[in-house]
Amino acid sequence: MPAAVNHDEKREAIARIAADLIAQHGLDAATIRQVAATAGYSTTVVTHYFASKRAMLLAAYRHAAESTQRRFDALAADCSSDPLSRLEILLPIDEEGRRAWRVYLQYWPLADHDDELAAEQRWWSSNGLSLIRAALWQACPELEDIDGKATIALSAMLGIAIQATFDPDGWPPNRQRETWKTHCRLLLARR
Amino acid sequence: MPAAVNHDEKREAIARIAADLIAQHGLDAATIRQVAATAGYSTTVVTHYFASKRAMLLAAYRHAAESTQRRFDALAADCSSDPLSRLEILLPIDEEGRRAWRVYLQYWPLADHDDELAAEQRWWSSNGLSLIRAALWQACPELEDIDGKATIALSAMLGIAIQATFDPDGWPPNRQRETWKTHCRLLLARR
Repeated sequence: MPAAVNHDEKREAIARIAADLIAQHGLDAATIRQVAATAGYSTTVVTHYFASKRAMLLAAYRHAAESTQRRFDALAADCSSDPLSRLEILLPIDEEGRRAWRVYLQYWPLADHDDELAAEQRWWSSNGLSLIRAALWQACPELEDIDGKATIALSAMLGIAIQATFDPDGWPPNRQRETWKTHCRLLLARR
Repeated sequence: MPAAVNHDEKREAIARIAADLIAQHGLDAATIRQVAATAGYSTTVVTHYFASKRAMLLAAYRHAAESTQRRFDALAADCSSDPLSRLEILLPIDEEGRRAWRVYLQYWPLADHDDELAAEQRWWSSNGLSLIRAALWQACPELEDIDGKATIALSAMLGIAIQATFDPDGWPPNRQRETWKTHCRLLLARR
């Protein structure tokens, strides 16, 4: 009897390979043929899961965002960790985080001209805002204008991540973490 | 006698058209043929100035960054203006600023896989940092850790600009300006 195939797992494995290829070589180089070859499937199998290159990109984007969310959740499960420091896992401070941001970079130009991709991007952006808002509240429940400050913190995080993605040598993990920490201290006015 | 042709002007005019097309329709849609048709030149003329699509993208990127710089310089020439508020012109708060950011978005994914494009991007990033550093110094010469704060401010500006580019309805010019102002107040600890 053939082994039962878990379609969700197969789909997820292909999305991960697509994310790797997109991050490493850019969207144009990450063809369905190349994803299939790397995964060891036929292109027919890949197109069964992702009917178009656009669908593959969306899946790769979701895969990157969801893995980041899972890594954050694992940290958050440890209640003794500092709520604002946990958010550092959202930055490109390791291989997986760096891959995620490189996928986002490839995704954004298409999202600027595609309503569905843009909506997905806004959803994750608003998810990031909620995580930051919750962390600020945990760190300092009496903080004034917590929504405004969460927005500023998300902006700073985005900017740090983009600079670090383009200039990994100039932005090693420590510098990203330190910049984030300094920013949080300013927000909380802990000097 | 034929009119003397100013090659720099012609090159600049083509770069502006390329930037418009890239911002409005994305990089893939902005072909050399399309740029030529919009400019009213033959493709031969366009390829005389930009030998490849990559060269055209680089020229469009520079055009966008340089126009932003010129607009900032015009504001800075008025010494009575507030140094930190002047920097708002770097955000996508009007048609021209919005166009610039949409061009950057199209440029970034290629820059992530191309050393020369990445170096250009880092140059402009470091230029932005200098402008912000100078403004912080003008606003508050005795500010502590001015380099660290300029880095944080550049990060926040990048993040505000990206969110506003993807969500122009959620980020009208006033919200961008207010978020920037609040951020600057936090940096200067003016509460």
